[in-house]
Order: sequence, then C-alpha cells, then structure tokens
Amino acid sequence: MVDVSDRRGDAPEASVFDSDTGCVPDGRARWRAALSDRWSVRAGVPNGGYLLATCVRALAGELPFPDPIAVSGHFLRPGRVGEAELATQVLRAGRRMAVADCLLSQDEQRALRVVATFADLGNPAGRTRLRNSPPELPAPERCVSATSGIELGGASIAEQVEIRFAELPAWRLGRSDDVADVAYWMRFADGRPTDVLALPLLVDAAPPVVWEIGEATSVTVELTVHVRARPAAGWLACRSRTRHRMSGYHEEDAEIWDSGGVLVAQSRQLAIV
Amino acid sequence: MVDVSDRRGDAPEASVFDSDTGCVPDGRARWRAALSDRWSVRAGVPNGGYLLATCVRALAGELPFPDPIAVSGHFLRPGRVGEAELATQVLRAGRRMAVADCLLSQDEQRALRVVATFADLGNPAGRTRLRNSPPELPAPERCVSATSGIELGGASIAEQVEIRFAELPAWRLGRSDDVADVAYWMRFADGRPTDVLALPLLVDAAPPVVWEIGEATSVTVELTVHVRARPAAGWLACRSRTRHRMSGYHEEDAEIWDSGGVLVAQSRQLAIV
Repeated sequence: MVDVSDRRGDAPEASVFDSDTGCVPDGRARWRAALSDRWSVRAGVPNGGYLLATCVRALAGELPFPDPIAVSGHFLRPGRVGEAELATQVLRAGRRMAVADCLLSQDEQRALRVVATFADLGNPAGRTRLRNSPPELPAPERCVSATSGIELGGASIAEQVEIRFAELPAWRLGRSDDVADVAYWMRFADGRPTDVLALPLLVDAAPPVVWEIGEATSVTVELTVHVRARPAAGWLACRSRTRHRMSGYHEEDAEIWDSGGVLVAQSRQLAIV
Repeated sequence: MVDVSDRRGDAPEASVFDSDTGCVPDGRARWRAALSDRWSVRAGVPNGGYLLATCVRALAGELPFPDPIAVSGHFLRPGRVGEAELATQVLRAGRRMAVADCLLSQDEQRALRVVATFADLGNPAGRTRLRNSPPELPAPERCVSATSGIELGGASIAEQVEIRFAELPAWRLGRSDDVADVAYWMRFADGRPTDVLALPLLVDAAPPVVWEIGEATSVTVELTVHVRARPAAGWLACRSRTRHRMSGYHEEDAEIWDSGGVLVAQSRQLAIV
C-alpha cells in the first residue's frame, strides 16, 4: 500500500471507489448497496463494471480467499443509480479456491448475475511465459485526456477514472477509424491505488473501443474478467480492442498491465452495438 | 440441416453428442442427465466442455430463444461419468434475449455453475467488420490426426471429435515448443453437423494448447463461450492459443470458423497448469 497523500495531495478517508461499492450486510447471504451517480456512463445509468465490482465486493465478504481470479457477469437489464439488493450464494469453498454467485436487483427487478471464483495470488509460483507485452505509451504526463474540456453528458465515470491516450482517439476528433484498438494509461482520479477488487470496474471504465470505428453505443451482454496478478502502485497501461463486429454484436477485449510491466487483468465482453 | 447419410455413411438415429447431452425433465426447473464415458479427457473424467454443453442443453429447454450467445461456466470440482442433476433458474426472459443459470451436481456435490444468455442469431443484421481471418490450413484430407495410432489412455473424446493438424503438434513429437498457438480442423466423428448447442463442447475439445509448451495438464477454472453465428455444415477451422502463463494459471483462447469462413464461436478459459 502506498501513502496516497504523498502522491496526490489530500488522502481521502475512504476512496470514492471504496465508499461507492461498499456493501452492508442485510441478513445471511444478503447485502445492500447504494449505487452512486459518480460512475455513470450516461445520466442515471451506472457503468456495468461498477455494478460488477459492487457484486465482487459483496462476494469478497463471503469467501475465504482474497483474489477474484475469474468473474463473469451476465447483464439482465441496465442498472440505475439508487438502492440495490445483492443475494449471494457460496457454491464451493475448497482448499485452493472458492466459488460463489451474486444476484444484484433493484426494486425487485434482477439486473446482474455474477459468478466469481476466488483464490490466493499472494505467493505466485511456477514458470512465467508471456507472448505479449504492455502497450508502449509516452509517459503519462505527455499523454492527453480524451474527456477534459468536453461536456460529459452525464458520463460521471470520466471524473473518477483518469484515462490518458498518446493522442486523442478518433471519436474525439469527430472521425471514424478502421481499427478499434487503443492503448491508454489509467488510474483512479482520487489517487486510490489499484487493487484486485478495482480491476472488474477498471476493465470496463474506458470509453467503448467501438467508438473508434464509428459506433455510437455499446451495451454489455456479458463481461468476464480474469485477475492474473495483484497490481503494483502507479499508472496502469491498458489496451482495448474489438476484432469482430458481426450481426449487431461485438466483443471487446481489454488488458491491464501494472507499473511493473505485469499483466494484472484480462477481460472480454460481448456487447450489442 | 444436411443429410449426414450422404456424407458419412450410416446416418445415426441420434448422434452420440445429442444422446450423451440429453437431459430428461425431472420436475420444475430440474433435469437429469447421464454423463457418458465417451467424452472423457482421462478415464472416468468427462471433458469440461461436455459438462458445459449438457448444461446448455438443459437451459435450451427452458428459454424462448435458440442461440446461446454467451455461456460462462465456473468449475467447482471435476465431473465424473454417471448420473448428474441439473437445477435451472430463468433469471430474465426479455424481448430480445433471455438469461438463465444452471447448477450441475453429482451425488449432491456441486460440480459446475453455468450462466447463459440466449438470443436469436437467425436474422443477422448490421455491419460486419473483422480484423481477423480463419486459420490457413491445407485441405483436411492432407492434414493429420494427432491421436490416431496412439494409446488414448482413457481420453475417449478423441474418438468423438475428429481433429486434424497441418502437421503433428510438438507434444505429439515428444518435444516442447516456444509458442502455444495451434490451428486445426474439427468435426464430430459420427458426422453430426455442428450447431450452436455443440459449440460450447467443441471450443474445449482439442488437446490443451499448453501441451505445446511442455505443460502436462490443464484444469479449467472458468470457461466462457460466445457463439457469434450459426455454423454452416462442414469442417470447422479452429485456432487455440495461450499467451500468458503466469503464477500457475494460463488462459486458453479458442476460435471456431465454419466452412463459409464465418467466425461462429470465440472462447476463453482460465486454467491451472
């Protein structure tokens, strides 16, 4: 844990992320959360990764391992800012990993089904072999924000997650590119260090990469995140890519690498254009 | 549907896949299946994709849409050949898609949690943009089986799914390669045409690609399949790849392209070495 006050000024008592994903026990295997308006993709509609991370927080409270190595979320309907109820079920707690599911509802309408496998990534062992590397980006201070100085239109998540590109993305320049493949730096705006619980949000926190190829919207059907390592402090180097846009659906693949050059999360989502 | 008798000799009354994934209703939202010994990866242990496809069959019986566009399975313990009970729950049936989950148990021990989103891929609309293409392979008749003439050691799945490589993979030659990236043809050995219900099995039916880099085992933690289109009849062109082997875990990505050059399924699994 780094002392964020050294880096970013005032150290918040609790980070925005921690307070906004906080789940309060509400009986056995039940939790309550208040979905905040600070992680929205448009007015009143919270980001899907924020909902996913809230479910992961509840599950972390139920399971004996710290690291959500595989988290799958199937979206049933869009969430909305306000109260949410989370019903959890531990499916198996084994010696090496544990699996549980969570159903997030609002006003008794089911919004998100999550299944998560937790394990312990604290003592990594075994060989490492990579056929990939972090994106190459200029230093963050030489990169640009895609959202500073523009009207966010209710996309409040852009105020919580700082994202910097080597150059302005195509959608920001009002043009459409041939390729949906972008690299960028990312971190929490309030200086909260990234941890494994934040990764299910962060893999979904950048603007949809299909904006690069001229698609205006992207609604997540399913999102799976694999947490591969515990992130070191500092900026995250990220990559998002869509290779197959077919029949009204596309996948978005994301990678997050930490400041030590370690792949910390890999995700794929299926989304509707 | 093609007439398989034209292509492969005797047309089976029911294919091995259909009979071995058949689920019998057992009350409301409950099904029974008999896991066969014909899809095993080693003696008595059925392939994970076979378990997944069995759950998808049960869910197809509950939902008003035909195509399982997103299927996530979290493995709780290895399955075994024999009776299985499947408990399903419809989470949402909307106008455009429906979501349900399934819990597969054997002797009251939970083995697999599946969540699936179904939709209708029958009338594909919208633009197609691909930044990828099917693997280039010599014609199937000029390719080789990796398992013909060797002792299968209980890996009966190799008798049900025909797989042909351009040349024998590294593991088959007793050596270890630097890269875990293989291409191959695939089809059911009994001539059953591939359909969307078979894809959750087929994405997991090839030998683990980490065998190429000298790893002896691969145990699936989580497997997500996105079905992107309904497959045309004929051989499937497939690709499997592992890029990140870290801390005892690796991901395996698979793609399946049909004989018309259409991407029909994309999958990723997180597995333990």
